[in-house]
Amino acid sequence: MNDIDIESLKGIANQLRIHSIAATTAAGSGHPTSCCSAADVVTALFFGHMRYDAKNPHYHNNDRFVLSKGHAAPLLYAAWAETGLFPAEDLLKLRQLGSDLEGHPTPRLPFVDVATGSLGQGLSVGVGMALCARLDNLDYRTYVLMGDGECAEGSVWEAANLAGIHQLNNLIAIVDVNRLGQSQPTAFGHDVGVYRKRFEAFGWRTEDVDGHDLEEILEVLAAVGLGSKPLAILAKTLKGAGISFIQDKEGWHGKPLSKEEAARAIAELQPTAKSAAGHPIPAPAQLAAPTHEGPASYPPTSYKTGDLVATREAYGNALVRIGEVDPRVVALDGDTKNSTFSEKFYKKFPSRFTEGFIAEQNIVGMATGFGARGKVPFASTFSCFFSRASDQIRVAGISRANLKLAGSHVGVSIGEDGPSQMGLEDLSIMRAIAGSVVLYPSDAVCAEKLVEQMAIHKGICFLRTSRPKTPVIYNNDEAFPIGGAKVLRQSADDKVTVVGAGATLFEALKAADALKQEGIGITVIDAYCVKPLAKDAIKAAAQKTNNLVITVEDHYPEGGLGDAIAGELSADGVRVHKLAVFELPHSGKPEELLAKYGIDAHAIAAKVKSLL
Amino acid sequence: MNDIDIESLKGIANQLRIHSIAATTAAGSGHPTSCCSAADVVTALFFGHMRYDAKNPHYHNNDRFVLSKGHAAPLLYAAWAETGLFPAEDLLKLRQLGSDLEGHPTPRLPFVDVATGSLGQGLSVGVGMALCARLDNLDYRTYVLMGDGECAEGSVWEAANLAGIHQLNNLIAIVDVNRLGQSQPTAFGHDVGVYRKRFEAFGWRTEDVDGHDLEEILEVLAAVGLGSKPLAILAKTLKGAGISFIQDKEGWHGKPLSKEEAARAIAELQPTAKSAAGHPIPAPAQLAAPTHEGPASYPPTSYKTGDLVATREAYGNALVRIGEVDPRVVALDGDTKNSTFSEKFYKKFPSRFTEGFIAEQNIVGMATGFGARGKVPFASTFSCFFSRASDQIRVAGISRANLKLAGSHVGVSIGEDGPSQMGLEDLSIMRAIAGSVVLYPSDAVCAEKLVEQMAIHKGICFLRTSRPKTPVIYNNDEAFPIGGAKVLRQSADDKVTVVGAGATLFEALKAADALKQEGIGITVIDAYCVKPLAKDAIKAAAQKTNNLVITVEDHYPEGGLGDAIAGELSADGVRVHKLAVFELPHSGKPEELLAKYGIDAHAIAAKVKSLL
Repeated sequence: MNDIDIESLKGIANQLRIHSIAATTAAGSGHPTSCCSAADVVTALFFGHMRYDAKNPHYHNNDRFVLSKGHAAPLLYAAWAETGLFPAEDLLKLRQLGSDLEGHPTPRLPFVDVATGSLGQGLSVGVGMALCARLDNLDYRTYVLMGDGECAEGSVWEAANLAGIHQLNNLIAIVDVNRLGQSQPTAFGHDVGVYRKRFEAFGWRTEDVDGHDLEEILEVLAAVGLGSKPLAILAKTLKGAGISFIQDKEGWHGKPLSKEEAARAIAELQPTAKSAAGHPIPAPAQLAAPTHEGPASYPPTSYKTGDLVATREAYGNALVRIGEVDPRVVALDGDTKNSTFSEKFYKKFPSRFTEGFIAEQNIVGMATGFGARGKVPFASTFSCFFSRASDQIRVAGISRANLKLAGSHVGVSIGEDGPSQMGLEDLSIMRAIAGSVVLYPSDAVCAEKLVEQMAIHKGICFLRTSRPKTPVIYNNDEAFPIGGAKVLRQSADDKVTVVGAGATLFEALKAADALKQEGIGITVIDAYCVKPLAKDAIKAAAQKTNNLVITVEDHYPEGGLGDAIAGELSADGVRVHKLAVFELPHSGKPEELLAKYGIDAHAIAAKVKSLL
Repeated sequence: MNDIDIESLKGIANQLRIHSIAATTAAGSGHPTSCCSAADVVTALFFGHMRYDAKNPHYHNNDRFVLSKGHAAPLLYAAWAETGLFPAEDLLKLRQLGSDLEGHPTPRLPFVDVATGSLGQGLSVGVGMALCARLDNLDYRTYVLMGDGECAEGSVWEAANLAGIHQLNNLIAIVDVNRLGQSQPTAFGHDVGVYRKRFEAFGWRTEDVDGHDLEEILEVLAAVGLGSKPLAILAKTLKGAGISFIQDKEGWHGKPLSKEEAARAIAELQPTAKSAAGHPIPAPAQLAAPTHEGPASYPPTSYKTGDLVATREAYGNALVRIGEVDPRVVALDGDTKNSTFSEKFYKKFPSRFTEGFIAEQNIVGMATGFGARGKVPFASTFSCFFSRASDQIRVAGISRANLKLAGSHVGVSIGEDGPSQMGLEDLSIMRAIAGSVVLYPSDAVCAEKLVEQMAIHKGICFLRTSRPKTPVIYNNDEAFPIGGAKVLRQSADDKVTVVGAGATLFEALKAADALKQEGIGITVIDAYCVKPLAKDAIKAAAQKTNNLVITVEDHYPEGGLGDAIAGELSADGVRVHKLAVFELPHSGKPEELLAKYGIDAHAIAAKVKSLL
């Protein structure tokens, strides 16, 4: 890199600053000072270091860039505009309803792989991408730009830990240490040594740089890939750098400059600013692309009705079965693989399995990264522990990520381990994720077929599996489309429609048998798809039973199956009576707990009778 | 500590091992090997070091012990039985429905402050307790026993970070480095140096010990409080220590011994086992207790109807107002205090405020710790970022914690920042927490009165505040009991009941005004309490409008206000038509977004007309 190039880059950095200031002032909101601190680092990456096809941001061997400090979105948008991807004038539409240049980056934009803006999540996504590059034998590198404030998030250290364990020398984190948070200075100010020691303790190589010295930044970047460790670059910067009357001052987080201030700042920067037009960008190596196509079909399942198989075990079987014919399928777990049965996949395809250890946020973040690179990632743990990653899942919803989650050990039917291990709120959390599909199989055939559906469907899918063994009730050729339900019992004079899933479906079937002996008919529906709900099928059944529905679920009463059906069908006159776990449960035997909390066959039968 | 004492302690440790083995074998499930690795550390703490009144586990100056590795519950129970708190025979009722000796510890037991069992959460609780001890001028210390596996959880490092910043030398973490996780060895095995470097990088003093050498453990414990840093003791142990045929072997996580194996193990341990009966336990210093009583009343609010005040600002005002008369009130925030307005409390009562930086899991964990020590902790951040701490909040529900959460910036009404900053799933998450109260004020008076209710109510309360300024509509003497609702518009010939809260309440009122001009009357209800729902009031209003209800909420359609009302009232024939944010929203101006996503006055009026 000669002197002339450095001067050009300095000019481009100031051009990005000008864009960031102008766009946020035009929008009347945003984070110009957070852009200015990182402008030199971003310039070095985009115009002096990264290898990518700027005209095709999705090219499979492009270096990846994740803006973990998503509030610096205007800087990212400015960089891509300067590559020539879209006109720089568009930057002034920042944050408008009609523009996809939103307040924080989302994949509505072709150059954004994952949504960011909830801090501390980018590094996990980067770890997933870096692992994916290795799996696919591609030499792209993954760069994650973080803020210093977000290094307080534990998810950063979960990601750092796994990157260190895997010696991901194709992963580079750059921390923009600008000293100032939103409401006060960070705990460590400009003491980059604190961050250095931490990354080193987590198995990383580190470099300290002056984040405004392009030569120094590029020199450090030139040694990317050296050695076997991931690299953390700790860039000491000034918030608002380049704006003489604002830089390094408190009280400027998330505030646009006034028109007058912006004019003054731009006047300061303009003399040394330079367009990036014509600036060369190194091309990525032309390497073979991994397949992004699924198989035409999956091998069949081979259960016998009456076999006792836990749906969690069927999940493991299904992963292996679909993994055989679909190389896109990868799996991740959080040291529960012997309980979730993802261990079956691990044993068969060890290179496509990532043990994430006990760090659920990072597991979901990594899976999102794998999904963004064209894989079909299945992540599993106890269902209740996915709540640890609720924010990552929420943001994956904003990313419209292709993410598959399988949560085992739901409800009181797990028994003796007690409430801390019982997923009793997972349906409520997962239903409220934008665009999610929520699945809840009762038997092994259904569980396996739903895993197929998850692989085929592009988006976030959650599979709720159970701990106890349950009998196989479906034939191997039964289909379970997303959005469906199965009417298992129905006769002309049924009085009530009972809807269950998982453990409670079998209780409903037992209740139906018992009630039949007393001459009371009930319709029983398997609601294997909680979202989107099989609204028409359930409504049709309900209407035949005087609109009377009882829902029975091994879940708290809020936000689960009962609320889903009531929320969708009460407008049509359907009356939903909910049986659910209405109090904080206790340890005990599964069958004792189903009885105590009123979701067993006896409770269902009693409820039916009370409504007659 | 002389040789005789050490021999006694060795005997007690083996007694605890015997109890743990016998109890889990009797239960047929549990984690005996995880108990055995930590038995010497627990013995050293309970019978050789900690100062506490064993007959009164709640005594305010007792040293605190948090079993972060909650699956070692039988060891904790054994230790307390050996102090004489309850008969050792009870230990054999482990995991039975009729015993509070559950699979993982819960505060149903008098010696458990907080539920554990979701790994990596205990240290945050300990940080809260250690901060609380300082605030209350008490000299109790807080000991947190962790597993090595859980050190992969980011929440551990969030807690470690804050403990380091605050130089909490009254906090001691002991890591039971037993090398073996659930499904495989941990990433670092017995290399305690990895953990040492990490804790040191996070500002801790560390000591490595042989976790089975009582003399060494006690020597290190004797220097607790030395210097200004928190202390991490890295104890190298063997999983299953003391059971010759199991210790340090893989495949023994979460498995009880068979009856034969248990008999053999106990036969090995019995010769050197010793009851702790009569063993002296040092008493805590008798220091003045902080008040645990709330005030008789709060000073009045003084808003004028029509004033424009955001409910988030009213939250800050209320914190100061109630904080003036209630010294139990403390506040925490995650570097958003200038947005949530908790800054007002910080400025007034800096010593009662904890800046948690961007680390929401730890903030909620610390608040739970404060609550367990008799404080009334209010934690605030953007509502969407509380999803980061969903698992901590879930476990706080199991703890029946006295925890107050205030989430600001909800829904599309925040505008330009875009979906990553919009709380659109918070009602669904918070409703599904065991025993939670979910509040959603629309004006400043209501917000302030609800903060009072939160302080008075013992349990988990969530307050959903909004970003935009809204007019004050209530008088200062209006009461807002938990479980209530306000009927704001009602006349004899109303056709539909519209229920809103927050931003949408004002849209409903606008719609009522517009419809009135067209001769259409609607009932408008302010559902300021989403859980427990004002079921009777809403039902009564609905019945007067032919059971027709429209809910309108700045939230996704799942698990929020609409589902709550439908879920509770569809059984009574109430028909709920939901207006909500049915798609992933975009950045834009608040009013544009309310319109685009169909939750503004126009959409409400159109929906009303469509139902006539």
